[in-house]
Amino acid sequence: MLDFITLCDYFGTFAFAISGIRLAAAKRFDWFGAYVVGLVTAVGGGTIRDILLNATPFWMQQSSYLIISGLALLFVIILRKYVVSLNNTFFIFDAIGLGLFGVVGIEKALTFGFPMWVAIVMGTITGSFGGMTRDTLINEVPLIFRKDIYALACVLGGIIYFLCLKINLNPSITQFIAATSIFLTRVLAVKYHISVPVMKGDDN
Amino acid sequence: MLDFITLCDYFGTFAFAISGIRLAAAKRFDWFGAYVVGLVTAVGGGTIRDILLNATPFWMQQSSYLIISGLALLFVIILRKYVVSLNNTFFIFDAIGLGLFGVVGIEKALTFGFPMWVAIVMGTITGSFGGMTRDTLINEVPLIFRKDIYALACVLGGIIYFLCLKINLNPSITQFIAATSIFLTRVLAVKYHISVPVMKGDDN
Amino acid sequence: MLDFITLCDYFGTFAFAISGIRLAAAKRFDWFGAYVVGLVTAVGGGTIRDILLNATPFWMQQSSYLIISGLALLFVIILRKYVVSLNNTFFIFDAIGLGLFGVVGIEKALTFGFPMWVAIVMGTITGSFGGMTRDTLINEVPLIFRKDIYALACVLGGIIYFLCLKINLNPSITQFIAATSIFLTRVLAVKYHISVPVMKGDDN
Repeated sequence: MLDFITLCDYFGTFAFAISGIRLAAAKRFDWFGAYVVGLVTAVGGGTIRDILLNATPFWMQQSSYLIISGLALLFVIILRKYVVSLNNTFFIFDAIGLGLFGVVGIEKALTFGFPMWVAIVMGTITGSFGGMTRDTLINEVPLIFRKDIYALACVLGGIIYFLCLKINLNPSITQFIAATSIFLTRVLAVKYHISVPVMKGDDN
Repeated sequence: MLDFITLCDYFGTFAFAISGIRLAAAKRFDWFGAYVVGLVTAVGGGTIRDILLNATPFWMQQSSYLIISGLALLFVIILRKYVVSLNNTFFIFDAIGLGLFGVVGIEKALTFGFPMWVAIVMGTITGSFGGMTRDTLINEVPLIFRKDIYALACVLGGIIYFLCLKINLNPSITQFIAATSIFLTRVLAVKYHISVPVMKGDDN
Repeated sequence: MLDFITLCDYFGTFAFAISGIRLAAAKRFDWFGAYVVGLVTAVGGGTIRDILLNATPFWMQQSSYLIISGLALLFVIILRKYVVSLNNTFFIFDAIGLGLFGVVGIEKALTFGFPMWVAIVMGTITGSFGGMTRDTLINEVPLIFRKDIYALACVLGGIIYFLCLKINLNPSITQFIAATSIFLTRVLAVKYHISVPVMKGDDN
C-alpha cells in the first residue's frame, strides 16, 4: 500500500510536471517537448542535488516519476478546458511537493554525511532548481528569482529542521514540522503577497 | 585502421559541431565562442549521460572530439560560401550521428547495469541534449521541442533495440537495426514533414 | 592566518559574485535571486569542473564561498551608489580571480590523473563557465562568447603552465607564471581592445 509520504511525493511530482507542461503549452511546444519540460520541472531539482551529492539520480531507480509526468501530459491534453479552473488545487499540490521535496533534500544530504548548512542548500536546490531549469529551457528569466517566496521557504524550512534536531525532537515530528513550515510559508506568502525586496539597479 | 563505427562517430560529431558553429555564427559569436558552442553541441548529450551514469565523460578520455570540433570550426570559417550548399550532406551526417549516439547511449546505460527503460532515456539524452544545450546557450527556445521528430526517433530506436534483444538477435545486428531505425525515422520525418502534435495553450 | 593564495581566492570569489549580483539587479531580481545568481557566478565554473572530475564540489567542503557571496550581496545593497565608481577595482579583482581559478582548475585535473589537455580545458571551465551560467540564468547570450578575451586567457595560461612543467620549473613559480599570464592577458585585452575575430553568418 502507498504510504502517506509516497502519496505526497507523487502528487507533488504531478503538480510540478503540470506547471512545466502548461508553460510549454503556452509556448506551443509539441507533445514530446512538453513532456520533457514537465519531467525536468518535476525531477530537475532532485537530479541536480543527486549529482552534487554524487548519488545515482533518484528517478533512475524507479520508473514512477517518468510515468507520473506522462500522466500529467495526458491530463493537460485531455482536460485542457478544466485545467485553469484547477489552478488552486495545483497550487496546493505544488506547495505540498515543495515542502516534501525540501525535507527529502535535507535528509539525503545528511545521510551522505554533509553538515547542516549543506543540507539546507540541498533542500532548497531540490525544491526550486527544477522550476529554474524549466524557465531556462523555455527561454524565460527564472520566476523564482523574481516573484513571491519560493526557494526561500525551503531555506526557512531547513533552519526549522535544524532547530528541531537541536532540541532532540523525534525524526518524524521534525520532518512533519519542517515540511509544514515550508508549505505554510509558501501559501501565506502568496495569499498575503509577501515577497523579498527587489534589487535596485546601479546607475551604470 | 579506423573501423566503420568510429568513422560514423567522427562524422556525426563533425555534423553536430557544424550545426552549433553555424548557429553561433548567425548570432555573431567570436571564433572561440563558436568553438565552445560547436563542442557543446557535439559532446553535450553524451556528457550529461555520463554524469547521470556517474561515468568519466567520454571526451575526457580521448582528444578526438575536441580536435574534430576544431576542424569543424576551420571548415565553417574557410569554406563559409560552400557550407550552405552542403546542407543536405550535413543533414545526412547529423542523422547518422543521431542513430549512432542513440545506440551508444543505450548500450552504455546497460553496461552500467541499468534497466532497459533507463537505457532508452540515456539513448535519447545522448542524441538530443547536446542540441538542447546549444539552443539554451545561444538563448533560443530549444528546437527539439518545437520542430520535426528528433529526440523521439531515439525513443523509437530504443524500443526497437529492446524488441531485438527480446527475440535474441545477435548484438551487432541489434545495433545496426536500432541505429538504422533512428536514422530512417529522422530522415523520413523531415522528408514527409511528419511531426508531433503541438500543445494548445490554456485560456489563462 | 590567511595566506596570499587564499586571499586572492576570496577576493576573486567576491568580484565574481559582485558581477552576478549587479547583472541580477539590472534585471530587477529580488535579493534572494540576486544572491543565487552571484553564488552561481562565483562557484559555477568550479562546480562544473568538479562534477566532470567526479569530485565533491569544492564549496560543499567549506562554507566560505556562500558567506563571501552573502557579503557581496550586502555590499551591493548597502553601497549601491559607490559600486559604479569601483568598476576598475572589481575588474582587477575579477582578473585576479580568473588567473587563480584557471590555475586551480588545471592543478585539480592533474591531481585526478588527467592529461595536460584535459587540465587546460578544466582550467578554462573553472574560470569561465560560472559567467556563462550566470548569463544563461538571466536570459542573455553569454558575454564570454562575444566580447573581449576571457576564456581564451585561461587556455593561454594553461599552455604556459604546460611549457613551465616541460622545462622543470619549480611548482610555485609555474603557478605564479601561469596565473600572472592569465591576469595580464585579460587586462591587456581589455585595455587595448584585443578580441577574437567574430564569425560571419552564412547566406542562409
